[in-house]
Amino acid sequence: MKYPMGSKKIMNSTTKVVTYGNRGMDLEKEINETNQYYLEKDIAVIYKKPTPIKVVKMANSKSNQGIIKEAFFEMPSTTDYNGIYKLKYIDFEAKETLNETSFPLNNIHHHQIEHIRRIDHHGGICFLIVRFKKINLTYLLLARDFLDFVDENTRKSIPLEYFKIKGYLIKDKFLPRVDYLSVIDQIYGGM
Amino acid sequence: MKYPMGSKKIMNSTTKVVTYGNRGMDLEKEINETNQYYLEKDIAVIYKKPTPIKVVKMANSKSNQGIIKEAFFEMPSTTDYNGIYKLKYIDFEAKETLNETSFPLNNIHHHQIEHIRRIDHHGGICFLIVRFKKINLTYLLLARDFLDFVDENTRKSIPLEYFKIKGYLIKDKFLPRVDYLSVIDQIYGGM
Repeated sequence: MKYPMGSKKIMNSTTKVVTYGNRGMDLEKEINETNQYYLEKDIAVIYKKPTPIKVVKMANSKSNQGIIKEAFFEMPSTTDYNGIYKLKYIDFEAKETLNETSFPLNNIHHHQIEHIRRIDHHGGICFLIVRFKKINLTYLLLARDFLDFVDENTRKSIPLEYFKIKGYLIKDKFLPRVDYLSVIDQIYGGM
Repeated sequence: MKYPMGSKKIMNSTTKVVTYGNRGMDLEKEINETNQYYLEKDIAVIYKKPTPIKVVKMANSKSNQGIIKEAFFEMPSTTDYNGIYKLKYIDFEAKETLNETSFPLNNIHHHQIEHIRRIDHHGGICFLIVRFKKINLTYLLLARDFLDFVDENTRKSIPLEYFKIKGYLIKDKFLPRVDYLSVIDQIYGGM
């Protein structure tokens, strides 16, 4: 099955900001739909956390009560997704890259790496979902293998080859779209 | 130990909105500090989720890039806190009330009750932390007991008496301030 990505047009310069802000929206949308599927089928309860914001100014007129008038997006201190599956704590981050040969590590910031380390240490099921968008390959990489790479390398990106060897391919499906829990079952032997 | 609540002054009418918006901030702040303590002591990894917002307008001039110019707070679909403790998925909501005899159920909205039901069903450790502010009593009420009340009653508030019988008192401590995990240990026998 092919993803309907051919519909994406090359943006002109005026829409550049929006394009940047929407990086990863395709994968994010598909994972949200997948989580909704898991929820409805009573398989797991996993949600994306809202993006943290710093409110600078609230509207102060009575008619505008509760309206935020100025705010900034903040850096998340954790990964984006967490929840429960077969009694286990699940925690992961999902990223897309346009790069075809490696995953740039600046996609995952320092606080998130420390969070991944903590969850791994506490025995949670923790991983990254990384989609190489141009070649339409989506991998699940366990926290342990991600941390091994980060700790043992000075490279600023993880080669695709590393995902091929250490990661698990998440095959495209119709329903659910990104069936990462079937990969978790496969890794942990159905738990 | 007494909480430093005597420092709170009666607000005049111009600060009314702010006061309303800050309901629950004392308990929230203390729980955030408690979670920070658990994190630093390597006891548990539990975070408050950011409040979801709906962005209506972003700044569009280049110098204001990334600034939110209009947004609203949205109703959360889950509880506020979750994480991992002793391999278990932890999930809870924390609320303060000025009511001295009962906890009004409109503090927990419908989507949150459904979320609590799902987490309980999936075997997560799920509960409410409710502080009766004026009498300075903080209770932990397990999801099961909360849901029993909701399902078996048409009342719009849970009497304090129910917390005294079914809930667990969280004693004031200096460090951590709201040591709810010690209560979880007590309930689940150290797990």
